[in-house]
Amino acid sequence: MATQADEELLPGEGDGLHSSGDHLGMRWQVNSTKLVSYEVRLHTDLLDPADPTLARAGITETSARPRRLIVLDTRVHAIYGARLSDYLTAQGIEFDLCVIDAHERVKTMDSVFQVVSAMDRFGLARRREPMIAAGGGVLTDIVGLAASLYRRAVPYVRVPTSLIGMVDAAIGAKTGVNFHQHKNRLGTYHPAAVTLIDPGFLATLSARHLRNGLAEILKIGLIKDAALFDLLAVHGSRLVAERMQSAGSADGGAVAGEVTRRSIHGMLEELQPNLWEDDLERVVDYGHSFSPTIEMEALPELLHGEAVTIDMALTTVLAHGRGLLGDVETERVLRTMSGLGLPTWHRLCTPELLVKALADTVRHRDGRLRMPLTTGIGAACFVDEVSAAELDEALAALRRFAGPVAFSGTAISAGGTHG
Amino acid sequence: MATQADEELLPGEGDGLHSSGDHLGMRWQVNSTKLVSYEVRLHTDLLDPADPTLARAGITETSARPRRLIVLDTRVHAIYGARLSDYLTAQGIEFDLCVIDAHERVKTMDSVFQVVSAMDRFGLARRREPMIAAGGGVLTDIVGLAASLYRRAVPYVRVPTSLIGMVDAAIGAKTGVNFHQHKNRLGTYHPAAVTLIDPGFLATLSARHLRNGLAEILKIGLIKDAALFDLLAVHGSRLVAERMQSAGSADGGAVAGEVTRRSIHGMLEELQPNLWEDDLERVVDYGHSFSPTIEMEALPELLHGEAVTIDMALTTVLAHGRGLLGDVETERVLRTMSGLGLPTWHRLCTPELLVKALADTVRHRDGRLRMPLTTGIGAACFVDEVSAAELDEALAALRRFAGPVAFSGTAISAGGTHG
Repeated sequence: MATQADEELLPGEGDGLHSSGDHLGMRWQVNSTKLVSYEVRLHTDLLDPADPTLARAGITETSARPRRLIVLDTRVHAIYGARLSDYLTAQGIEFDLCVIDAHERVKTMDSVFQVVSAMDRFGLARRREPMIAAGGGVLTDIVGLAASLYRRAVPYVRVPTSLIGMVDAAIGAKTGVNFHQHKNRLGTYHPAAVTLIDPGFLATLSARHLRNGLAEILKIGLIKDAALFDLLAVHGSRLVAERMQSAGSADGGAVAGEVTRRSIHGMLEELQPNLWEDDLERVVDYGHSFSPTIEMEALPELLHGEAVTIDMALTTVLAHGRGLLGDVETERVLRTMSGLGLPTWHRLCTPELLVKALADTVRHRDGRLRMPLTTGIGAACFVDEVSAAELDEALAALRRFAGPVAFSGTAISAGGTHG
Repeated sequence: MATQADEELLPGEGDGLHSSGDHLGMRWQVNSTKLVSYEVRLHTDLLDPADPTLARAGITETSARPRRLIVLDTRVHAIYGARLSDYLTAQGIEFDLCVIDAHERVKTMDSVFQVVSAMDRFGLARRREPMIAAGGGVLTDIVGLAASLYRRAVPYVRVPTSLIGMVDAAIGAKTGVNFHQHKNRLGTYHPAAVTLIDPGFLATLSARHLRNGLAEILKIGLIKDAALFDLLAVHGSRLVAERMQSAGSADGGAVAGEVTRRSIHGMLEELQPNLWEDDLERVVDYGHSFSPTIEMEALPELLHGEAVTIDMALTTVLAHGRGLLGDVETERVLRTMSGLGLPTWHRLCTPELLVKALADTVRHRDGRLRMPLTTGIGAACFVDEVSAAELDEALAALRRFAGPVAFSGTAISAGGTHG
């Protein structure tokens, strides 16, 4: 056997194949490192027919006969389909469009199969034809999972068209779909080679979906960037009204640009050293302890960012109850949420549901709660224990903060997020 | 913003978050390395109630209340279910058994969903409760994919009970299921933390399934290990008859042990430096250029190793036609295949189907065929072009080699693999 040389190595010692023992006690240790590298890029006028950025994204050498499969959401297709087709034609690309309906209720393996069938029909090559995913966070999560599974991974490019996609879903490594009412129960880590962010797409986004993205930006502000929080507290409603565009903006879009950059940067700072979540204490899980269960139970009523904000409101009050957050800060956080038109309360916030939510979160975080709580605005800690009494008290306090509207269980519509 | 310090770094320079540009031209490069490490271990009497090896596989710290979900194939459950339950009870483990039917026709996402539902029912924790997969290659591929997708990856342990599992399916990183008649169209790279190989399980394996595993061993012999080929050529039929067991064997199982070790070692040597198939020229793809299409078209007639052998017979003749393999070697290879009771011909070997198979293989290997061919026994090269005329000639030559039985299209039953 060719194992003589290898046996001098100890198991676990660096990359390589290390074998030891012999006959029926033989062991082999396989060690291998994988470098994952991806790019996130702000780029305006992505669909300018003269700009090759999108056409060349994710490829290392140009092809004589470039082909691309583009998967896009129904609504994105309705608004941008013609311009996208013109762009690809202008860039000399042979393409197929695969249009799918992408929202939380159809964030399932069936949608992944739709994309996989389109990949088969297109006859996608394994490495040289990166698929392009254009849409919101649900769309890019679905397409990312399809890309991850197809022939055990093909490259893809993300073009987020929603704010939550630009600052959250489309800039990390995660892909995923729901399974049996469980949020993102199935998924992988497979970042797009390149994510191209063109804030121009936000001009056609609804106010509700704009707010949905501001919720995840608010999260970054609350757990690590007080200055970002301040920008939202002061300019939040204007950012919604102006759809974060420079044209027609009082400051030429300076605040919108600053908010976008800080948010993306803060998120990537947290993701990069922990891309595969080896460490289950993640500050970016803030707002994601109760919300996966609330969001799934409320389907289709709440958008992701809305459920996250309800969770953040509850944990803000929990932090206040523990003396981690003062009265003034607590009120400021809750007022900012309301000011952004985001809900701070939902009728599903019952002790029973919240306890059930935490039980699943404990399994997700491998036997410990590891729940981030804010310790002042812009900083966080982790807690493993939340008592039933503490939860009851927080719920009561949150109802008081949320005001009479909340008691009727209609705070969300009153907050205007369905407007 | 906190990007000042980072901007001094160039994009792509080592692990970390590297940002450059500003305003609307800003870019971030996320670089991160992941260490993947797994163990393959030969271990006899795995179900000895006093042996903690299986109970402790894949965990870093012992738990006060250990729990395990075990997924096993129907047939494995029928033979070993009671012993396995006794073993787990003796080891003080609280467990659930999930029994699924695992064969090529149900190697689908539906079977993955069955496993996922069992994981949900069990309430599997994310890291501390490695799932155990016990069965053949189809079973471990299905469970591996479920483990890979569940909460974006949970650990698992593989206990292959078939020979093809022990030397091939259960020792690499690949998981996968078929989709729309396409072999392993959906899958991931997610090796089990530990694979425990107990050749004792082979005692109850059918002769046909034993041969199925010898086909993949033969592949390793043909492309890189002439001594391994010689062992099969000389002892092949005895290994089948004795089910590779030491008890009752003329040599106390010495040849069986040597064949198993050489085969595993050879396979791991090829996999380790290319675990994610960054290099698409893989000698272990030998026998896997035509066979995925043949196997799927013939379903459920051919086992994987049988389809692989038909492919290897064809490519042996192709290599002979190119002068890469002499007359004597060519005959010796084909005679060894027949001697092992493996088929060297199938009625689906028509020029039309073979051309279709190569077209899909070209897509799988990213636009080039990269087909391994043997250059003498124990060595291989790669070719990108196979002409239609060459294929016709090889088919005619193979029919001559395969003898009159093959002409009737019943070579497989005549070869005894269904016996």
